Amino acid sequence: MRIDQIITRTNKEAKEFDTINATLLQKAGFIDQTMAGVYSYLPLGLRVLTRIENIIREEMDKVGSEILMPAMVPRELWEKTDRMETDILFEVRGANDKSRKKNKASYILSPTHEEVITPLFMKQRMSYKDLPFAAYQIQTKFRNEERPKSGLLRGREFRMKDLYSFHASDEDRREYYDRIKDVYVKIFDRLGIGEDTIVALAGGGDFTDEFTHEFDTRCESGEDIVYWDEREQAYYNAEVASDELKDGSEEIKVSEVGNIFPLGTKFSEAFGYMFTDQSGERKPVHMASYGIGSSRVMGVIVEKFNDDGGIIWPKSVAPFQVYLAVMPGDNKAVIERADKIYEDLLGAGIEVLYDDRAGVSGGMKLKDADLTGMPWRAVVSEKTGSKVEIKARTSEEIRLIKGSDLLKVVKA
Amino acid sequence: MRIDQIITRTNKEAKEFDTINATLLQKAGFIDQTMAGVYSYLPLGLRVLTRIENIIREEMDKVGSEILMPAMVPRELWEKTDRMETDILFEVRGANDKSRKKNKASYILSPTHEEVITPLFMKQRMSYKDLPFAAYQIQTKFRNEERPKSGLLRGREFRMKDLYSFHASDEDRREYYDRIKDVYVKIFDRLGIGEDTIVALAGGGDFTDEFTHEFDTRCESGEDIVYWDEREQAYYNAEVASDELKDGSEEIKVSEVGNIFPLGTKFSEAFGYMFTDQSGERKPVHMASYGIGSSRVMGVIVEKFNDDGGIIWPKSVAPFQVYLAVMPGDNKAVIERADKIYEDLLGAGIEVLYDDRAGVSGGMKLKDADLTGMPWRAVVSEKTGSKVEIKARTSEEIRLIKGSDLLKVVKA
Repeated sequence: MRIDQIITRTNKEAKEFDTINATLLQKAGFIDQTMAGVYSYLPLGLRVLTRIENIIREEMDKVGSEILMPAMVPRELWEKTDRMETDILFEVRGANDKSRKKNKASYILSPTHEEVITPLFMKQRMSYKDLPFAAYQIQTKFRNEERPKSGLLRGREFRMKDLYSFHASDEDRREYYDRIKDVYVKIFDRLGIGEDTIVALAGGGDFTDEFTHEFDTRCESGEDIVYWDEREQAYYNAEVASDELKDGSEEIKVSEVGNIFPLGTKFSEAFGYMFTDQSGERKPVHMASYGIGSSRVMGVIVEKFNDDGGIIWPKSVAPFQVYLAVMPGDNKAVIERADKIYEDLLGAGIEVLYDDRAGVSGGMKLKDADLTGMPWRAVVSEKTGSKVEIKARTSEEIRLIKGSDLLKVVKA
Repeated sequence: MRIDQIITRTNKEAKEFDTINATLLQKAGFIDQTMAGVYSYLPLGLRVLTRIENIIREEMDKVGSEILMPAMVPRELWEKTDRMETDILFEVRGANDKSRKKNKASYILSPTHEEVITPLFMKQRMSYKDLPFAAYQIQTKFRNEERPKSGLLRGREFRMKDLYSFHASDEDRREYYDRIKDVYVKIFDRLGIGEDTIVALAGGGDFTDEFTHEFDTRCESGEDIVYWDEREQAYYNAEVASDELKDGSEEIKVSEVGNIFPLGTKFSEAFGYMFTDQSGERKPVHMASYGIGSSRVMGVIVEKFNDDGGIIWPKSVAPFQVYLAVMPGDNKAVIERADKIYEDLLGAGIEVLYDDRAGVSGGMKLKDADLTGMPWRAVVSEKTGSKVEIKARTSEEIRLIKGSDLLKVVKA
């Protein structure tokens, strides 16, 4: 894509925020803050978010069916599960007298969807033959956070994948639950944060008395703390760690990128979601839920992978694989060479951000390449003659190679 | 995809609603009503919605850059444009005392995004060199409708594509505006409703004193009325039609699937979005906005294309191209033949919904094929021997063909 089509600009002089991801994503023109905890995704940022969500979607499609539930739902659903007092809950109502007069009702703006998916499926999947099954969505969620963190780590409006599974027994739920743990490990690997992501035991909050499982990425600006228990060979979230463990073990700062919850029969009993077993008996359905914060993952990736120059995207989520700069942008012969390289890479299916701006200096282009963080930087200039200067974002080494070899290097 | 993965079922005995799309989409298991005007998209329904949105996205990518703005935005933005009294406006606030105490603020839940995109781009695109440009999003919108229509024609939460363009002059805006009119014609053609979609002149509401343009699909359950003006050779929306035209001309019922608005400098002046022209003078940016209701389009398509048996999807948006039924579902030899045909079609890149259910009668499978509306139905049964029975959804003709010829027929 030619850089003009990106329409948003880097802003290297933008102010510093309290987190690295907020600062770099805004300097690099990936996101724009509308208000605390609420952001627009600009063209480069939306490409990253879409890539993250597509990786999640690919793995989810192997274990469940994609659906899309509404954000705005009736209060009655939350009254049924006795969760109307949840302190992060938002409600929606007419914004002015005219609007409220037309329609007096108010609704819940969903932070999670157990209250929607349970009554949805109890309409039609009522026999043991219908179980187990699982459905997921990738959707915008809302939470009334008191103090949202700047950037994408904790927002009032954020993106999330949520999967829900339904089972005839707790044993069956456990089997699927363990399978999803493995799927999550694979997803975080593919997203480039597998090495730094651990599974920790956590509390179940309103949901369950059992331990739940968090997927936590080591991250200095993370909000959660976990401890390694040498005896149990397990990580424990600070909420559930014993005082002994807290005293004797190092604090590890993490950001929670995913969680999985055994829900037991809490929601099925609240809604009366019963199935008929093989002997004709009516029993409550066993459930579990599994979240991944896709926008938070984007923030965590930036927290993990950056240097003084800017962001360093893992290949799997980078908005483009190559940042191709032509310098200067007003030498016709050089531009022709760069145009040809651009077309060749596109033709080979490589995604290229082509910086062919005329009035921008070479130095500025190199800075923008570093800041925006594509895995490869390729430079065509008066100096490179018929060759191309190529540099990996993660390396200092600059190589001068034939244009025809570029494809091999980038694809490797 | 094997039909078990769809997880939702058809429900041929479901009740009748006030619109065809509400009835058929729910009987066929494409959507589920959470409350009036608010629906979940089930696996088959989400496939259709995604197809519709991807067609729109392909055409939009040629004329603008995709971004994603938040739904929840500060009240100040709407106060600045003096639109806080809009009667369909929703606000968001803490749902209970605890939540409201933590964060007292309330926000607007956006029905449209002029209030977000104007301040967003005025941060960085300030020179005549930055103009024109355009950005769009495909997103969930919220409107406090007094009486939402059942089905997808008028919802309180719905899907929409909205494009915004920014120009140095009204002449430049007009040129782009006319180009988008052509793009819209192409989009509605690709969505299968081009023949029945007309362009009508309409009022600009709060936005503008000029005529705006609606894209209206002829539709008996549509909520709008337009009139053909023979003298002017133009359609007029009832809002702007003269009494003379209304008296002398036939009422045409339509559903508005798209609209385009010249916004003039209303929003740029409200926010102070000025650019510096070539002579150094500061001038307000000229804007226009362009919507397509992607979920409404889904409803309109069902209103247009159906028969007694169910939905008839245009190929471009059908969730699968072929409904492949094996009957009976418990004859091993027949199943093996059907499995092979299924794998061959998949291998050739054809999307197939494979109905291999064991306990379901052949008659029921044929009814489900009609109801769910895929362009082709293929049957492998004890009767067909080594052949396949093939029928287009739009035709009564049933042909017995060789399995190896199926691909040719379906691809044609």
